[in-house]
Amino acid sequence: MTENKEMINTGLRGVTIASTKISDVDGAAGKLVYRGYLAKDLAGKVSFEELAYLLLYEELPNESEIAPFEQQLNRERSLPPELIAALHTRPKDALPMDVLQAAVAMLAHHDPDAKKSSREAALAIAIRLIAKLPTLVAAWERIRNNENPVDPDPNLGHAANFLYMLTGTPPDDELAGFFNVAMVLHAEHSLNASTFAAREVASTRAHMYAAVAAGVGSLSGALHGGANTRVMQMLLAIGAVDKVDGYIQEVLDSGGKIMGLGHAVYQTDDPRAHILSPMSKTLGERAGDTRWYELSRDLEKKAKAAFKEKKGREIYVNVDFYSASLYYYMGIPVDQFTPVFAIARIAGWAAHVLEEQFGGAAAKPALYRPESEYVGDYCGPAECSFIPMEER
Amino acid sequence: MTENKEMINTGLRGVTIASTKISDVDGAAGKLVYRGYLAKDLAGKVSFEELAYLLLYEELPNESEIAPFEQQLNRERSLPPELIAALHTRPKDALPMDVLQAAVAMLAHHDPDAKKSSREAALAIAIRLIAKLPTLVAAWERIRNNENPVDPDPNLGHAANFLYMLTGTPPDDELAGFFNVAMVLHAEHSLNASTFAAREVASTRAHMYAAVAAGVGSLSGALHGGANTRVMQMLLAIGAVDKVDGYIQEVLDSGGKIMGLGHAVYQTDDPRAHILSPMSKTLGERAGDTRWYELSRDLEKKAKAAFKEKKGREIYVNVDFYSASLYYYMGIPVDQFTPVFAIARIAGWAAHVLEEQFGGAAAKPALYRPESEYVGDYCGPAECSFIPMEER
Repeated sequence: MTENKEMINTGLRGVTIASTKISDVDGAAGKLVYRGYLAKDLAGKVSFEELAYLLLYEELPNESEIAPFEQQLNRERSLPPELIAALHTRPKDALPMDVLQAAVAMLAHHDPDAKKSSREAALAIAIRLIAKLPTLVAAWERIRNNENPVDPDPNLGHAANFLYMLTGTPPDDELAGFFNVAMVLHAEHSLNASTFAAREVASTRAHMYAAVAAGVGSLSGALHGGANTRVMQMLLAIGAVDKVDGYIQEVLDSGGKIMGLGHAVYQTDDPRAHILSPMSKTLGERAGDTRWYELSRDLEKKAKAAFKEKKGREIYVNVDFYSASLYYYMGIPVDQFTPVFAIARIAGWAAHVLEEQFGGAAAKPALYRPESEYVGDYCGPAECSFIPMEER
Repeated sequence: MTENKEMINTGLRGVTIASTKISDVDGAAGKLVYRGYLAKDLAGKVSFEELAYLLLYEELPNESEIAPFEQQLNRERSLPPELIAALHTRPKDALPMDVLQAAVAMLAHHDPDAKKSSREAALAIAIRLIAKLPTLVAAWERIRNNENPVDPDPNLGHAANFLYMLTGTPPDDELAGFFNVAMVLHAEHSLNASTFAAREVASTRAHMYAAVAAGVGSLSGALHGGANTRVMQMLLAIGAVDKVDGYIQEVLDSGGKIMGLGHAVYQTDDPRAHILSPMSKTLGERAGDTRWYELSRDLEKKAKAAFKEKKGREIYVNVDFYSASLYYYMGIPVDQFTPVFAIARIAGWAAHVLEEQFGGAAAKPALYRPESEYVGDYCGPAECSFIPMEER
């Protein structure tokens, strides 16, 4: 038994627990690598479909490989009518991430592959999940607003089709391209909390739907994927650039946190933030309202300076800091930012579940089953003696 | 950063990662302790309601404490009609654990407390989940058989009411009592895979429904809660005591496993098995058919001897080994054994989510976020260079 006091109650921060061939995060250098490629080198050059192929099949596809993969995704975009019927039973004020978690679990009910244990079945489920998650998120947005879901358009790529299903209007090429870049940058990030949750569930040999539903639940947390929604709520609450100084002072005085700053792994700026930021600026200019971009940039600059001066430490932007204003400019509802994160991260979750269940990195025993140290009371040197209720 | 090669790819087996005041498992001595009390001392003496109180509130209730708690559980047993409507949209051949995972996630949609972050709200959700899970499992059993769900009976205790809702017939006292004991023994087991999954999700500050849905997903795995169903399938496949020798030989020859033998933590018989076994015998005698109990006992005895002789090692029964025939004698459908595990384990999951989010054991940083070691390829000393698709 490994009794290493260093890792008790650390949340496993900085503890290396598994090897992987999927991605590499170098927190000190600010590098994110997908299957050997720097994420920043892929952003703007590959479609999300190509990236999903890379994550699932370990290499970038050539033209004869990507075509059938895109066709497969295209065929799998639609939802079973019974699932749409189930969404119609849901209260309209349900949180989108809560609806997504239930919907992912429900997809299993319609898929005979969920009852099989082969790698082939799991890969088929992976592709279905990548294809259907955008449709689910868009369908709930429409249903909760008493509108009919928009059917997927087979002539649109993955990123463009999502924005079309969400809003009912096909995006122009620049908008679709920016959203594609955002999806590429959110697709995978090693053992973040949601991916770890998905792997943990998959390690029991539960199927991929059960594992991904756990990932969605984990991503919904305010400290994980929920943070992008909270960044935008913060920006909206600040409201104007001339309020930034006051807001930072308030946070420093109260010992609070500024959403979108700080990360469990990076000790420098998140490499993804530098790509998201200029896209936010461009969309602000297009909209004739650069306020949210300007406010973000000003907040970043001043918060960094203030933390250095007052607390003597550096603070860095993470992926959520500029994705917030970017998604806002795209017309995505603020409480749908985290589901939008999920429709990208599904590619990483799926790759990790496949690796967990069918290898690819290193042999490991199945089933994550850590131990705990009991620090509760006993009633003396031995266990407590049972006392009947009438004597308590 | 803790770079301890001993724990990479071990599935965290034997690695102590957190302190807890909820339970203690001594794998060498075969002891299971709930908040200071040996589980075997509580079995047969406390109701599941009392045990749930102990796990949530850290002490056994007295008479003036248990009454309002039981009333609260009683009031919370029913399901929102919209959730029953959603269950009616589900395909009848959906796996019960998959339906349960979706249903737990859907419960969040109906609960305003899911949008709050207080301990009070989380505790209210805990009690609702403990109260409603049996109703959900029973409702799905009825709906998939084209029968109407049976409304909870406020005059029946928690264990008896479940069997009533499942079958439509109230159990006699002995049956209800045995089921209560089984629920007490399945309620909590420290950082097993499903509890760890629930804590992991809760660590992101996701709400209790999201965390418990992850726990249900993890429990569904064949290597975790799914094992009790598989034990019964194995017993049914063996079919008769005179086939036991041949079955063991077959397993030894093929290098396979006997379901219900072996455990990630115990290095001796699971203390719960010794309490479940005589209850299975009694119900077999009541039914005038002790075959499944006899078969289990014979298989245990002969498998232990064969493993010692042929493999030179001891092998031990776990909790699933005798719960299988016990549940079978109770008339519970074989594929509902794992949901029946869940309606007991919910008490432990809830206690752990409360401890994870609101303390009680030790301060720890939020968010389980381990690291991984990248063992994938680079294209040379540095990252791969991007190659456009037409050149691949």
